[in-house]
Amino acid sequence: MTSDPFFHPVSGMDLPRYAGIPTFMRLPLVQPGDARFEEVEIGLVGVPWDSGTTNRPGPRQLRDASTMIRAEHGHFGIRPFEAAACADLGDVGPNPADIQDSMARITAFYDQIVAAGIRPLTGGGDHLCSLPVLRALGRAKPLGMVHFDSHTDLWDSYFGGFKYTHGTPFRRAVEEGLLDPKRIVQIGIRGPMYDQEDRDFAKAEGIRIIPIEEFHARGVADVMGEAREIVGTEPTYVSYDIDFVDPTFAPGTGTPEIGGPNSYQALQVVRELMGLNIAGADLVEVSPPFDTSGGTAFLGVTIMFELLCAMVGQGK
Amino acid sequence: MTSDPFFHPVSGMDLPRYAGIPTFMRLPLVQPGDARFEEVEIGLVGVPWDSGTTNRPGPRQLRDASTMIRAEHGHFGIRPFEAAACADLGDVGPNPADIQDSMARITAFYDQIVAAGIRPLTGGGDHLCSLPVLRALGRAKPLGMVHFDSHTDLWDSYFGGFKYTHGTPFRRAVEEGLLDPKRIVQIGIRGPMYDQEDRDFAKAEGIRIIPIEEFHARGVADVMGEAREIVGTEPTYVSYDIDFVDPTFAPGTGTPEIGGPNSYQALQVVRELMGLNIAGADLVEVSPPFDTSGGTAFLGVTIMFELLCAMVGQGK
Amino acid sequence: MTSDPFFHPVSGMDLPRYAGIPTFMRLPLVQPGDARFEEVEIGLVGVPWDSGTTNRPGPRQLRDASTMIRAEHGHFGIRPFEAAACADLGDVGPNPADIQDSMARITAFYDQIVAAGIRPLTGGGDHLCSLPVLRALGRAKPLGMVHFDSHTDLWDSYFGGFKYTHGTPFRRAVEEGLLDPKRIVQIGIRGPMYDQEDRDFAKAEGIRIIPIEEFHARGVADVMGEAREIVGTEPTYVSYDIDFVDPTFAPGTGTPEIGGPNSYQALQVVRELMGLNIAGADLVEVSPPFDTSGGTAFLGVTIMFELLCAMVGQGK
Amino acid sequence: MTSDPFFHPVSGMDLPRYAGIPTFMRLPLVQPGDARFEEVEIGLVGVPWDSGTTNRPGPRQLRDASTMIRAEHGHFGIRPFEAAACADLGDVGPNPADIQDSMARITAFYDQIVAAGIRPLTGGGDHLCSLPVLRALGRAKPLGMVHFDSHTDLWDSYFGGFKYTHGTPFRRAVEEGLLDPKRIVQIGIRGPMYDQEDRDFAKAEGIRIIPIEEFHARGVADVMGEAREIVGTEPTYVSYDIDFVDPTFAPGTGTPEIGGPNSYQALQVVRELMGLNIAGADLVEVSPPFDTSGGTAFLGVTIMFELLCAMVGQGK
Amino acid sequence: MTSDPFFHPVSGMDLPRYAGIPTFMRLPLVQPGDARFEEVEIGLVGVPWDSGTTNRPGPRQLRDASTMIRAEHGHFGIRPFEAAACADLGDVGPNPADIQDSMARITAFYDQIVAAGIRPLTGGGDHLCSLPVLRALGRAKPLGMVHFDSHTDLWDSYFGGFKYTHGTPFRRAVEEGLLDPKRIVQIGIRGPMYDQEDRDFAKAEGIRIIPIEEFHARGVADVMGEAREIVGTEPTYVSYDIDFVDPTFAPGTGTPEIGGPNSYQALQVVRELMGLNIAGADLVEVSPPFDTSGGTAFLGVTIMFELLCAMVGQGK
Amino acid sequence: MTSDPFFHPVSGMDLPRYAGIPTFMRLPLVQPGDARFEEVEIGLVGVPWDSGTTNRPGPRQLRDASTMIRAEHGHFGIRPFEAAACADLGDVGPNPADIQDSMARITAFYDQIVAAGIRPLTGGGDHLCSLPVLRALGRAKPLGMVHFDSHTDLWDSYFGGFKYTHGTPFRRAVEEGLLDPKRIVQIGIRGPMYDQEDRDFAKAEGIRIIPIEEFHARGVADVMGEAREIVGTEPTYVSYDIDFVDPTFAPGTGTPEIGGPNSYQALQVVRELMGLNIAGADLVEVSPPFDTSGGTAFLGVTIMFELLCAMVGQGK
Repeated sequence: MTSDPFFHPVSGMDLPRYAGIPTFMRLPLVQPGDARFEEVEIGLVGVPWDSGTTNRPGPRQLRDASTMIRAEHGHFGIRPFEAAACADLGDVGPNPADIQDSMARITAFYDQIVAAGIRPLTGGGDHLCSLPVLRALGRAKPLGMVHFDSHTDLWDSYFGGFKYTHGTPFRRAVEEGLLDPKRIVQIGIRGPMYDQEDRDFAKAEGIRIIPIEEFHARGVADVMGEAREIVGTEPTYVSYDIDFVDPTFAPGTGTPEIGGPNSYQALQVVRELMGLNIAGADLVEVSPPFDTSGGTAFLGVTIMFELLCAMVGQGK
Repeated sequence: MTSDPFFHPVSGMDLPRYAGIPTFMRLPLVQPGDARFEEVEIGLVGVPWDSGTTNRPGPRQLRDASTMIRAEHGHFGIRPFEAAACADLGDVGPNPADIQDSMARITAFYDQIVAAGIRPLTGGGDHLCSLPVLRALGRAKPLGMVHFDSHTDLWDSYFGGFKYTHGTPFRRAVEEGLLDPKRIVQIGIRGPMYDQEDRDFAKAEGIRIIPIEEFHARGVADVMGEAREIVGTEPTYVSYDIDFVDPTFAPGTGTPEIGGPNSYQALQVVRELMGLNIAGADLVEVSPPFDTSGGTAFLGVTIMFELLCAMVGQGK
Repeated sequence: MTSDPFFHPVSGMDLPRYAGIPTFMRLPLVQPGDARFEEVEIGLVGVPWDSGTTNRPGPRQLRDASTMIRAEHGHFGIRPFEAAACADLGDVGPNPADIQDSMARITAFYDQIVAAGIRPLTGGGDHLCSLPVLRALGRAKPLGMVHFDSHTDLWDSYFGGFKYTHGTPFRRAVEEGLLDPKRIVQIGIRGPMYDQEDRDFAKAEGIRIIPIEEFHARGVADVMGEAREIVGTEPTYVSYDIDFVDPTFAPGTGTPEIGGPNSYQALQVVRELMGLNIAGADLVEVSPPFDTSGGTAFLGVTIMFELLCAMVGQGK
Repeated sequence: MTSDPFFHPVSGMDLPRYAGIPTFMRLPLVQPGDARFEEVEIGLVGVPWDSGTTNRPGPRQLRDASTMIRAEHGHFGIRPFEAAACADLGDVGPNPADIQDSMARITAFYDQIVAAGIRPLTGGGDHLCSLPVLRALGRAKPLGMVHFDSHTDLWDSYFGGFKYTHGTPFRRAVEEGLLDPKRIVQIGIRGPMYDQEDRDFAKAEGIRIIPIEEFHARGVADVMGEAREIVGTEPTYVSYDIDFVDPTFAPGTGTPEIGGPNSYQALQVVRELMGLNIAGADLVEVSPPFDTSGGTAFLGVTIMFELLCAMVGQGK
Repeated sequence: MTSDPFFHPVSGMDLPRYAGIPTFMRLPLVQPGDARFEEVEIGLVGVPWDSGTTNRPGPRQLRDASTMIRAEHGHFGIRPFEAAACADLGDVGPNPADIQDSMARITAFYDQIVAAGIRPLTGGGDHLCSLPVLRALGRAKPLGMVHFDSHTDLWDSYFGGFKYTHGTPFRRAVEEGLLDPKRIVQIGIRGPMYDQEDRDFAKAEGIRIIPIEEFHARGVADVMGEAREIVGTEPTYVSYDIDFVDPTFAPGTGTPEIGGPNSYQALQVVRELMGLNIAGADLVEVSPPFDTSGGTAFLGVTIMFELLCAMVGQGK
Repeated sequence: MTSDPFFHPVSGMDLPRYAGIPTFMRLPLVQPGDARFEEVEIGLVGVPWDSGTTNRPGPRQLRDASTMIRAEHGHFGIRPFEAAACADLGDVGPNPADIQDSMARITAFYDQIVAAGIRPLTGGGDHLCSLPVLRALGRAKPLGMVHFDSHTDLWDSYFGGFKYTHGTPFRRAVEEGLLDPKRIVQIGIRGPMYDQEDRDFAKAEGIRIIPIEEFHARGVADVMGEAREIVGTEPTYVSYDIDFVDPTFAPGTGTPEIGGPNSYQALQVVRELMGLNIAGADLVEVSPPFDTSGGTAFLGVTIMFELLCAMVGQGK
């Protein structure tokens, strides 16, 4: 709990939302090495790393859109910036020319975050980002995971054996012991498939997949009740791929699949996480070149605000 | 009831929809001072006034889109242009450099409309436009109001005490006695909030707020039944902020909030107004710079057509 | 049933989806006169003919988007490219300067397809395309039709007696005996109307119209159950106008109407066709100039994939 | 010469440029049959007719952009709206389904203009529009023509013998005796060619073609001096295809060719027409679907303003 | 001269240009009150204030684009970030609801800059911004000014007497004694005019106007030689309105005029300022809603880099 | 010389340009292994490989735009498709997850081309593509090179030692003996620089750099005369980076630099290559996500057509 105004975002009542350097949700920028870094409780991090980046990465557009976020959750009445010391921790610098080096840089950055006792809320970047983050968060003990996506990201390899793409991170994370497959639930899976290989892996490991047809038939509350049971009270990671949402509501992404949830459901699923033990969360796969109106980035940061409220409200 | 072809819109069967000067719904342009001004029963007015206008105001884009509207309501079978003498009354000229002067010009224009016995249907412009319109319509007696929006617009002031912005019009209107707060219902309120000040005012004055969570839970028919009871049979104003609708369906607006109604619900709520005593209506906050595909303007004019049918059909 | 790899699409696991000449769903291009033309069972055809074409026709954008389609239906598990020999048959060349000549060229092309025993799946093009296609398919015996659209396309004429526009094809098809009106069902009709003339024709001929209000009230399963009964087990054509879908989900079309189905429903209605005797199908009215983000083309090809699965799975 | 304020455009000093119904240059709308039609000296006409029209025709976008035009020519000091009675004569309604009928309607409209002694300044529409206009203007006696374009539009036919497309109007006009080929000059011709057939016709008839390479080598003043000599002092038509200008400066057109004049040269060539005997002029081939930023329409109306000044200043 | 790496921008060789919080040219953010504020020699400031702002102000887009700027001037070899201590001073917070209050806030901010001995390089915002900046810089003694623009901005008033708009700042500045009219040169003036009132004022005060026709005829070097003579060796302000440049090269602005310089000339005119005594400079009127591709912002920051080099190199 | 109609492109007179599968310039698709592969003389190849590819690669957009190219060069009268057997050889499939593997695949593909005696004209893809192409073409003997670009692409490494990016290909090519540095000329270099390292390398190796300031001062003919002398009569490669052209004319690229040639000069420099001994050529760095209007792709294929004519006309 913090009443220190240093950690409160700038209000749109005082400074118009379009003025000022855009940090996440207009929070202070507190980077590793800064004096107050150790005081941060929840850190918002950008990982502008994407095999398809064309000089318009996700974090910058997410930060721009996040200046529209205000101080209080309209439904729960939570005021997250008072409930926890939040800060923008800046971006991790990737190496666009080397995937392994980029992953090493990301893990090193998150090791500092873990060491400082900060829980990270990440804005990506593509879904491969989750792997190096989990290498820092899940090293001590495998985490559970609530995973919103239209793809399982459990493929073994692409293009003749290549193991690290945005279609493979969670297979690697399970293999490396960073995630406990029995405590993974994947929600919203859909679309034309290559074959059954990813789902065979899930079945063998005990990962629960809830396809979109089941999601639409059962509804948010029922599905999320099952998800809460699967991950239980142990530390859990939340990974939210924006392509979980129907591409009309979130066009700014690289591998859309028709027929997902609408924007209201996109928020409701996060609200149902309230009370879980959230060790960290990410919102990934926002791709500005496909987000010509900026609406996907705005949806993305609204989801990040819901995730933040869920992280703050977890004792409730 | 008019069978005078002067007041009938040009048909797309006769002249392609993209030809001709774009008036609202291809109606005749009849401005104050014109010979037949007194014969008009329902006047469509543009108020191209917006603190964020960048030479692409709402009314022009609404007029362009409105050329797609045809003569008959598909569901009710109403033919509004035969049922009442409708005309495009032109635009009110604002003063982009002075808010008070702009409001005075708008009220003066609407005084002429009221004096001629015309009921106005306004295309804005931002939401502050509603205040000078209400100064003409509600002067004699406070009106009730059905208000569709994601914001209450009941704030006291912005930027250190400034009283006239698009976040404050209805607080002013209540204070000035133009609206009867007991007969106001606000539907669709949502999104991150600054604080509770607007809702405290509503509670103190007896204004009924129906947040979006309640709207989605109860459904259109139930919510609108309550709205009809609140405003009753006395004269009522309808104010429709396009940001009531989810921003995926209506991206062309300045302060969107995620999670609103879809486009079908956006029309259904207006259909439920049939039979009310509607003194005037507006459709505001369409902002063309954010409406890159023109879809928001087209949704806006379709809502205006529904409003027009509700105004025409009110004896039913 | 084919295991001949010649008829299998290129996999995104082997060649990135953005590489290679874009044929429909990355299938082989097999045109009339080619050696293996007779082996094709289902042919995907482009008809880039549109009275509003501005050098950005539907088929090209559909082909580009179709490179995102994979090999297996996520819900049914159908692998259509193994179940039938599918190929891209190329485009029919229209004459942009002469409607009658264009229709003659299209019918001639489809006569070759019918002669080779190929069932066509067409990507348009505006809705007038369906008429010359039906002249090839329905010549022997009138077909039934499941027609998804927001308009009936049953008008008699436009602009003072002109009989061939995208508002008139099915009136002509009924008059020419290509369709059996008793076996036609039109789903999703809505929007402001000129008058009742099209619906009077439908009533007189026994065509069943299901307006959007009824669609939303009854739901997909109930409506489609009635549709299946209407067309029965005889050969049936499926004509899918993309403006059936709500324009927020499918903005890339010329005469949008507010309030249609969402993208999930857009797919579900096709899944309910499984088991019907489908003689051919089309997906029309995708208009790239209005599809600035490409999302409509992507929705369109996903619908084409569902149509393809329904054509393949019809014995089931 | 007119000081009648009825014929003066609304000033942006009085009413913001984005307010009001958009007529050409904010002039009064005076259509055939209106009381003051006979008083008009120069009439601005829209011809929204284009084989590639997708509900976004040129004249509407030109009118919108034209609200930026002010009262006085910055270089010459001419005040055209005081020097002549100018008015917007509205649009000619085409028949989108029939080219011959559309041409007949256009010629009939321009016959009224000619009968009233009005000189027309047309905003198209595609280049075929010029033919029916010339049928009204050149009927009495063949006109000379200064033609700015990247194409000669002198082809015989397209698509197997079709005689009326936007590649053929001036061949038809010469054949019909509406233009005097010895007094035609075509400036800016360039780009990859089908073959030499159009240039063979020009050579045979005595039409002077100035290709872009010669234009760039000689400069505006020299080339236009020759053009003035070719057309002489007899009545002359000016036809300005926006694709004369380099497509970077005028992307909003259907058949662009790389390497044309820049925007300053685009205006300078018109200024060099001052003093000619201009019987009418047009600005054609502005295609809004390709003009995503609106810059082409704005360039187009600025050229129309230059043409207007040249028409007004011709006695000088 | 500074070799302190604190004041050096982040290199794209170390961190990809799309990573990190976007400050101007990736410089440190040093705001009034910060420890090292007094050490800054040249401060880059954002003034996101624009009567047409729609939540997409100029400074944010300029900062984003400025991450593409590197360390060394390609032609002169100047390395400005080593030659002077440069920093991003942040944005001045305007009051969007009150022009007078906004101007007071801006002047107060620049008073701090002047007091700290910092020379400001401002990114706007609209052209009215220059007035409150000049109130801080020109208070002690009137400045000379090199003014690049297509408009004189010397009008007396708009909309019936309103004195403070983006068409009036320099008339006010001359009246208030902030600028010495004899040392003002305005370059690039063009376009249709209201009347001669602004040029009459210029003539009476001795302001030199170089219209675009003269600019194109004489060339950059000759015109700029005269400009250098006019302002002489005394302190001079440089005000660069992006609409000086032709709108094809700089479409992202609100009142474009056809026929200006190209992008190479846009840079060359600034290079010719090398050696002048520059007290401050601004780049204004970049309007992101019209800058759909971001090219105008990129041109704007490249001009700012040239201005910075001219400010650094002035002893040369 | 070929009169075989198999190798002639489809004419727009026969089939509208927007119909048919888009191959380069509507040529036949003849891939390695096809029967007539050995007959091809000039092969157009796509290399959709770009570190910033977001599912919108250059070759697909280039092919789409290339359907506008006609049969005859307007200025030279060359008919290249009759003068040589030209074909579209398809795309090389890259491995988006591995740069070294991608380069190996490209070289292997071009080895087949070289073996068949085909001269390649490549559409990229980013500039690193040129390196694996040169490994096939320059293996036997170092080539000369005419290089149009705003960057030298002679850097040693990025991001801490990474040797293969689009800023390093020609340093690698010189080091590997694929290019003869004494016969390299680089034209158009400009923009803010990191430092002098690339130019130091050029000086040491004898590479001639012509910066943009020199280009504008001397003009096309003079500069290209020197270029012709530098490369002489021996086999020469032409590498054309689209960012050579000013970004207003070619916005669709990733690292634009202000102040380059206009589109007319962009073509003229290629025309001056006529008569050289061209072993192959490429047009690279077209990036569709930045090419929102498609104008850059159209400029790119027009340049490719000029390159093709230069390759065909080299004996002249």
